[in-house]
Amino acid sequence: MKNLLLAAALALLAAGCATTPDNTVFQMSTIDALLVGVYDGHLSGRDLLRQGNFGIGTFEALDGEMVVLDGRIYQVKADGSVVEVNHDASTPFASVCFFNPDIRFDLTPASDFAAIEEQVNRIAPNQNLFCAVRISGKFKSMHTRSVPRQQKPYPPLKQVTARQPEFFMEDIEGDVVGFRCPEFVKGVNVPGFHLHFISRDRTQGGHILGFELAEGRGEVDLLSRFHLQLPQDAESFAAADLSRDRSEELHAVEK
Amino acid sequence: MKNLLLAAALALLAAGCATTPDNTVFQMSTIDALLVGVYDGHLSGRDLLRQGNFGIGTFEALDGEMVVLDGRIYQVKADGSVVEVNHDASTPFASVCFFNPDIRFDLTPASDFAAIEEQVNRIAPNQNLFCAVRISGKFKSMHTRSVPRQQKPYPPLKQVTARQPEFFMEDIEGDVVGFRCPEFVKGVNVPGFHLHFISRDRTQGGHILGFELAEGRGEVDLLSRFHLQLPQDAESFAAADLSRDRSEELHAVEK
Repeated sequence: MKNLLLAAALALLAAGCATTPDNTVFQMSTIDALLVGVYDGHLSGRDLLRQGNFGIGTFEALDGEMVVLDGRIYQVKADGSVVEVNHDASTPFASVCFFNPDIRFDLTPASDFAAIEEQVNRIAPNQNLFCAVRISGKFKSMHTRSVPRQQKPYPPLKQVTARQPEFFMEDIEGDVVGFRCPEFVKGVNVPGFHLHFISRDRTQGGHILGFELAEGRGEVDLLSRFHLQLPQDAESFAAADLSRDRSEELHAVEK
Repeated sequence: MKNLLLAAALALLAAGCATTPDNTVFQMSTIDALLVGVYDGHLSGRDLLRQGNFGIGTFEALDGEMVVLDGRIYQVKADGSVVEVNHDASTPFASVCFFNPDIRFDLTPASDFAAIEEQVNRIAPNQNLFCAVRISGKFKSMHTRSVPRQQKPYPPLKQVTARQPEFFMEDIEGDVVGFRCPEFVKGVNVPGFHLHFISRDRTQGGHILGFELAEGRGEVDLLSRFHLQLPQDAESFAAADLSRDRSEELHAVEK
């Protein structure tokens, strides 16, 4: 019995210390590294799930949009198909948390992206904190994009999104997953809202460009800790010029 | 024996998970919050030492410059005196790590601040990572400043440093302690080098404005993880306008 307890305690020690505490956004790499084409995978799906069960990102070689929901990782590919990924898949850029909502609220019907932003900002007014956002509902329309797998030498993200496949869905149920980040993350993550979508049946989704909500519920999780992990040994990351203001590039690729 | 092992494992579990892993810069609050006058203490010295044994910062009410070295916290007051602080003292802004140098090197004699920066950058060329820097040696000259304790309503940092007390030391032994941060931390920490000084006898120090090294050794610890903790419940932090570019203000206060 004591041996069992000891083993359990040691296992907890090993597992517990590898995971991120509650109230934390964990992030792999920086958005500006992604903008300049650092698409090598730096972290496996397995390791990502140790840091959170909820979030967004992309895949090695920029192979589609990532949605992490309820501890599963979904890949929205450039052809519009969705697969649940093998945990060996790796990511160059992702943000996750253990989603534990502080506030749940009904959303105003017929809200678009801007109206939802306003509602979340009213409910979670401290914009100097991070905020994980989940919206579950029926959408009259949902407009998303994905990105196609790239070959080396990797082009900058702006070149890829200039020819991005876009998807238009109507009368679709599903979940909006993402974060509101403080303005001061500029260069590191996306200031403001960055949201991805996955349909209830997990067959459609992508990086959200716009939507109209029919009816739904919102959940927000205020997060005051931010854990950034940089790809220490990646030559592409070391060589990236991350000293410039890339706000305009970011604005271009988020559209 | 097994009970002892079990107790030890559980203690490690409790302690281990509260501390920051190696290879990590832990930071309380943001430099821009400090610039606008968020000087309330958000973290005790005790809790800060759980996150690192090496680093720099300031104290509640901007009461002097902080040096954390070998697990002790020193306060360089505005009158130039230095005390080792009680762990109940709290900080509005500090950055620490568990210092575990990757590279040790001899420094070129007669180096000034700029020459030391060059040497560190040659030895640790990946400027997209964080880097803790310690320089132990004899200094022909050392020029520092501190800041005086403020009263509410707190003025912005620029107003305080406009009348900062400065200290000029000659032929003094001691330690330079600080960080080189990537450019992309702008708004969150100080891009480039941010170094404090404490004399070998722990009686003099401050935020470094300039120096000339007579002879010394450098140590650098490359750090690829950055853990930012924001003061979730502090009204002053919530109310701070952290959306503006404050590079010029920062430049003014770092001089």
